Amino acid sequence: MIDFQTNPSKYNHWKISFEGEVATLIMDVNPAATLKPGYELKMNSYDLGVDIELYDAIQRLRFEHPEVKTVVMTSANPKIFCAGANIKMLGLSSHAHKVNFCKFTNETRNSIEDASAASGMKFIAAVNGTAAGGGYELALACDEILLIDDGNSAVSLPEVPLLAVLPGTGGLTRVVDKRKVRRDRADIFCSIEEGARGQKAVDWRLIDQSIPRSQFSEAVVQRAKELAALSDRPAGQGCSLGDLSRQFTDAGVEYSTVSVAVNRDRHDAEITLKTVGTDMPADAEGALAMGDQFWPLRLTRELDDALLHLRTNETLEGVMVFKSQGDLDAVMAADAFLQANADHWFIREILAYWKRTMKRVDMSSRTLITLVEPGSCFGGFISELVFAADRAYMLEGQFEGDDRPAAEMKLSALNFGALPMSNDLTRLETRFYGEPESVDAAKAQIGVALDAAAANKLGLVTDALDDIDWEDEVPMVIELRASYSPDALTGMEANLRFAGPETMETKIFGRLTAWQNWIFQRPNAVSDQGALKLYGTGTRPNYDFNRV
Amino acid sequence: MIDFQTNPSKYNHWKISFEGEVATLIMDVNPAATLKPGYELKMNSYDLGVDIELYDAIQRLRFEHPEVKTVVMTSANPKIFCAGANIKMLGLSSHAHKVNFCKFTNETRNSIEDASAASGMKFIAAVNGTAAGGGYELALACDEILLIDDGNSAVSLPEVPLLAVLPGTGGLTRVVDKRKVRRDRADIFCSIEEGARGQKAVDWRLIDQSIPRSQFSEAVVQRAKELAALSDRPAGQGCSLGDLSRQFTDAGVEYSTVSVAVNRDRHDAEITLKTVGTDMPADAEGALAMGDQFWPLRLTRELDDALLHLRTNETLEGVMVFKSQGDLDAVMAADAFLQANADHWFIREILAYWKRTMKRVDMSSRTLITLVEPGSCFGGFISELVFAADRAYMLEGQFEGDDRPAAEMKLSALNFGALPMSNDLTRLETRFYGEPESVDAAKAQIGVALDAAAANKLGLVTDALDDIDWEDEVPMVIELRASYSPDALTGMEANLRFAGPETMETKIFGRLTAWQNWIFQRPNAVSDQGALKLYGTGTRPNYDFNRV
Repeated sequence: MIDFQTNPSKYNHWKISFEGEVATLIMDVNPAATLKPGYELKMNSYDLGVDIELYDAIQRLRFEHPEVKTVVMTSANPKIFCAGANIKMLGLSSHAHKVNFCKFTNETRNSIEDASAASGMKFIAAVNGTAAGGGYELALACDEILLIDDGNSAVSLPEVPLLAVLPGTGGLTRVVDKRKVRRDRADIFCSIEEGARGQKAVDWRLIDQSIPRSQFSEAVVQRAKELAALSDRPAGQGCSLGDLSRQFTDAGVEYSTVSVAVNRDRHDAEITLKTVGTDMPADAEGALAMGDQFWPLRLTRELDDALLHLRTNETLEGVMVFKSQGDLDAVMAADAFLQANADHWFIREILAYWKRTMKRVDMSSRTLITLVEPGSCFGGFISELVFAADRAYMLEGQFEGDDRPAAEMKLSALNFGALPMSNDLTRLETRFYGEPESVDAAKAQIGVALDAAAANKLGLVTDALDDIDWEDEVPMVIELRASYSPDALTGMEANLRFAGPETMETKIFGRLTAWQNWIFQRPNAVSDQGALKLYGTGTRPNYDFNRV
Repeated sequence: MIDFQTNPSKYNHWKISFEGEVATLIMDVNPAATLKPGYELKMNSYDLGVDIELYDAIQRLRFEHPEVKTVVMTSANPKIFCAGANIKMLGLSSHAHKVNFCKFTNETRNSIEDASAASGMKFIAAVNGTAAGGGYELALACDEILLIDDGNSAVSLPEVPLLAVLPGTGGLTRVVDKRKVRRDRADIFCSIEEGARGQKAVDWRLIDQSIPRSQFSEAVVQRAKELAALSDRPAGQGCSLGDLSRQFTDAGVEYSTVSVAVNRDRHDAEITLKTVGTDMPADAEGALAMGDQFWPLRLTRELDDALLHLRTNETLEGVMVFKSQGDLDAVMAADAFLQANADHWFIREILAYWKRTMKRVDMSSRTLITLVEPGSCFGGFISELVFAADRAYMLEGQFEGDDRPAAEMKLSALNFGALPMSNDLTRLETRFYGEPESVDAAKAQIGVALDAAAANKLGLVTDALDDIDWEDEVPMVIELRASYSPDALTGMEANLRFAGPETMETKIFGRLTAWQNWIFQRPNAVSDQGALKLYGTGTRPNYDFNRV
C-alpha cells in the first residue's frame, strides 16, 4: 500500500530552511529510500515517494507558514538540480503505476502554480545544476527559472530521443503554452539530449536568467525578496497539519468526517462525507485557533487522502459513489463562514484546497455517481460533488421505514465562481454550457431549500426518483456501469467532463496525458526491446519505424 | 495500396440526386464492395472505402455544383440510416489502419462543417432509420439533425457499452461541445446501447426535430429550402474535377505540380511543389474556365492526394521534407489573384481547400521539415508550408556549382488570416504565441523579398545556414530525427504544434483521438478476449477491471 501521508520529520528527500519571508526547498534525494525495490534514486531522480514528500511540503508551506512569500526550489547536489523521474523505476512499473505516478506529479506541479495564482506565493527554481526531464518540468512549474552559468548546467527534455516517451509532467505543454517558446525551437529543444543553457536558453524563453556561479546565490536571494515584496501573505501564526485520524480495514477506511466503503467484487466504492464538529467559531482567527480540526479543513484533508488512496491502492472499484450524511444547516453555516472570511489567508487556503480536491475528483479515472438521499447534507461547497458527478440521483420523499425527512439541497455563492474546474468554468457553467440561462436560474435559488423535484427542474441532478424507482434503478446503474470496459469509460469520461474552453491544465490532463498513456502502451517504449527497458544497458532499442 | 481518387461513376456506396438548390446524398452501402477481404458492409456500415467516396462527393458538391446550397444526407435503407464503422473490419485491422481510418473520417466530417462555415452550404441529416455510432457521428457533423419518428429509429453511441472503444469520430466532443448536451445526459446517452429518440432526443439537444413518417420527406424538403434561402452560393457553371495526372513508381509519385520521392531506408519522403502552368487569367470567371487545370487548384488537389497516399501507403517515412521549385513571382501573382477574387465562389472554394489541406499537414503524424533553397518559390499561401513545419531551414547564398540565385521568401496577406490552423490562429500567430509583436513585424514585410538573413531575423525560419553548414547539418537533422521512436515523435509533435486556444477540431484530434488511440492498444478492446474481436460472436469479452 502506498501512503500519501507524511510529515517533515519523516522526509527522506527534501529539506526546508526558512529565512523570514523566504523558504528554501532543497531536493536531496536519498538513493536508497525508494518506494519499491529494484532501483536506486541516483542523481536526484525521483519516484512517487519523492513526490509525495514534495506535495506534503507545499501543503505545509501554504498552511503552516503564512509568513513565507517566496519559495526557492534548489538542490543539495553540487552538479545536479534534478534528473527527473527515475528511468529504472519507470521500466519496472506497471502501466497503471506509470499513469498514476504521472497524474500525481502533474497535480503537484499544478498545486505549485495554484499557490502562485491563489495564495500570493511565488516560486523560484534556483537551478544550480543540470535539470533534465522531470527536473526541468519541476522548474517549469515555478514562476521563474534561474539557471547557474557554470559551463555545464543546462535545462533539457531528453525524453523523446533517450527514452521514447514524452516529457509528460506538463513539459511539452508548458514549454509552448506557459513559456511560449517558439514551436520550432521547442521542437529542437525537445529532441536533443543536451538541452540548452546560457544566453540562448534565455533568448528562447526556456529560462529567465543565466547567472554566473559567483553571483548565483545572491541573485536568487535578491529575486526572492523582490517577489516577496509583491505578496499579500501575512506574517503570523500558521496552522499545523497533524496526523489524520484514519483507520484502514478490509472494508475501507474510516476518517473522522469521511467514510470509505469498498466493494471489490461489485467494483464500486462509497465515499460518505459527514458533518462532525461543524460548530463555527466567531471569526477567522477563531478558525485558525481550531487549526486542522476546523471542520472544512479536516474534511478536505480527509477527502483528499481518500481519493489518493482509492486511486492508487484500490484500482478495482471503477465506480465511486459519493454520499453525504449530516446537518445541511451546519454545512450552510460553514459555507457562509468561508464566504464571509474568504479574504483571510487561512480561509483562502482552505477554499483553494477544496478547489484542488474537487479538481482531483474531476480528474478521477473512475465513474462518479452522487446520491442525494434523506439524511444527506449537500449544500454550498459540498454540493460541488453533485455537479462533479457523471450522474447524480436524488430521492423524492422518504425511504420506507426510514423516518428521516426528504433530502434537500442548497446552493451558495461558492457554487458560482470560487471553485472553478480546470477548464476555468464553474461546474455549473460547464454543466449548462448549452444553456447559460440555467446558471442564472440556479443562482436565483441560492439559499433556498431544494427538494428533489425542484433540484431536478433546475437541472442540478440527473434525475429525481421515488423510492420504488430508486431501488430498481440506482443499483442497476452502478452495476451496469461497473460491468463496462474500464478503459473505454476512462476515455469517455475524460471527454465528456470538460466541455467548453481548454486551459493549460486541461491540455496537460487531456492532450498530453492521453498521448503519453498511448506511448506507455507502445512496444517502442515499453517492450523488452523498448527504450524504457533498455536505458542504461548499453543496448540500443529496436524500434518499429512505421509511423502511426 | 489504398487509392483516395474516385469519381461518381465508380461509387459503390453513395448516390447523389439534385433538385435545384438541394442535393441529396444517399448512403446505400454495397456490402460486398469492401476495401479489404474478411468482412461484409451490412446495414449501411462503412469502411475507409465508403468514406473515400463520401469525401469525394463533398468535394465535388463544393466545386462542381455551386448551385447546391443545401445537402441532405440520408439513407436508401428503409430501416437503417447508418450503423457506423464496420466492427468486423475494425477487429481485423492493424492499429495503424484503425488510427488512419479514424483520422480520415474525422477530416471528412470536419470538411462538412467547413463547407457549412466557409462555403454557404448547409447540411441536413435526414435520419430516416437508426443512426448508431459512426452513423450518428456523421449526423453530428451536419448543421441539423431531423430524425424520423416511427417508434423504432433512434440515434445512439453504443461504442462504450458494446465495443469497449470510444465514439472516436468526433462523437463525444460534438455531443458536449457542439450540441451542448448536458454532461450527465451525454453520459447516459453514451453508455446505453439503445440511444434516444422522439421528444426526449430533442429535449436533450441530441437532434433538432422528431418528425412522423408521414411528414418526414416533406419536412426535410421544407427545411432544406429554408436553409438554402440563407446561402450566398451562386447559380451557374461548376468546375469539373477530372482525374489527377499522376504516376506511381517505386521511387515515389509524380503529379503535374507535385513530386514525391520516398526513401524508405532513410525513413524520409521529399515533397516538392512546382510552378507549372501558373499563368493567371483576367478574372475569376477566367479561372473557372480553366477549371481543374487552374494552377492553385491543381496544386492543392495533387498535394492533398500526395499527403493521403503517404499517410496510408508509405508509413515508414517518418520525416516529410517539403521543398518548392519554380518562379516566386508567379506564385505571388497567383496569390494576388486569389486575394483579389476571394469573394468569387470558385476562388473561395480553392482557398478553403488549401486551408483544409494545410490542416491535413498540421495533423500529419510525421515530422515536417521545410527546406528553402535556391530555385524555391515559397511565397504567400505556399509559404504556409514553411510555418507548418516543425523546422524550416533556409540557405544563405548559393550552393557551390549551382548558379541559381539565393533563395527568397515573400509574405502575403493570406498568411495573416485566411488560412487558420484548427486552433483558429494563423500559423504565424501560433508560431509567435509568445511575441505577438513579431506577427506585426512580419506583416510589415508583406511583399518584400526576404533573403535568408532577413527571414531568420523575422523568425520565419528556424535557422539560416550557409552551404557548408547546410551540408553538415540538414542531412544530420533529418537522419537523427528519423532514428527516434516514431510514437514518441508523434506524441511530441501533436503537443508542440498547437499552442494557445483549443477548438472543437483540436479537441477531436488531441484529447479524443489520443484517448481512442490509447484504447485501441488496450487488451479490453483489441485482444482476442477483447470486445472488438468478440463482437457478434455471442461470447462476452473478458475485461480486466482495474481502472487506470
